[in-house]
Amino acid sequence: MPLFKARVFVSLRPSVLDPAGEATRAAAGRLGVKGLEKLRIGKAVELEINASDEEQARNQLELLSEQLLANPVIENWDLEIESVNSRKIA
Amino acid sequence: MPLFKARVFVSLRPSVLDPAGEATRAAAGRLGVKGLEKLRIGKAVELEINASDEEQARNQLELLSEQLLANPVIENWDLEIESVNSRKIA
Repeated sequence: MPLFKARVFVSLRPSVLDPAGEATRAAAGRLGVKGLEKLRIGKAVELEINASDEEQARNQLELLSEQLLANPVIENWDLEIESVNSRKIA
Repeated sequence: MPLFKARVFVSLRPSVLDPAGEATRAAAGRLGVKGLEKLRIGKAVELEINASDEEQARNQLELLSEQLLANPVIENWDLEIESVNSRKIA
């Protein structure tokens, strides 16, 4: 079965406050980083999954993202399947 | 000054254990997600910064990533400048 590499980005919905991001933005100012307009902290989940094809991999990862990785009340998620490494022996 | 959108990915170094990722992987199995080989949780920081050019934006964001966003003892980071939205008035 081919091995799919994927990333799921989980970010706070724009209407949700991000106090950790705000604190980091304030600290960046003190560090001397200039011009920062926005800083929001989300999660990036790196995954590898065995599946018969990309559609099956996508289905499994969508289930995982919706049910486990993101809290749909306050978070959005976005799935990127990055590459396929076929392990089939021809 | 143009506004640059960027993302910084902060991930645990491969040699560092990720207990939250392992717990999530175990929960994924119980949820019925099959074939998961790897799951590691990192941070994705979304940024917007005003800078005179891309090089200046990159310098500021590299400083920020090294000094504030990542802990270099246990984490790697990777910077992607995504797009430019010029605000200059011609």
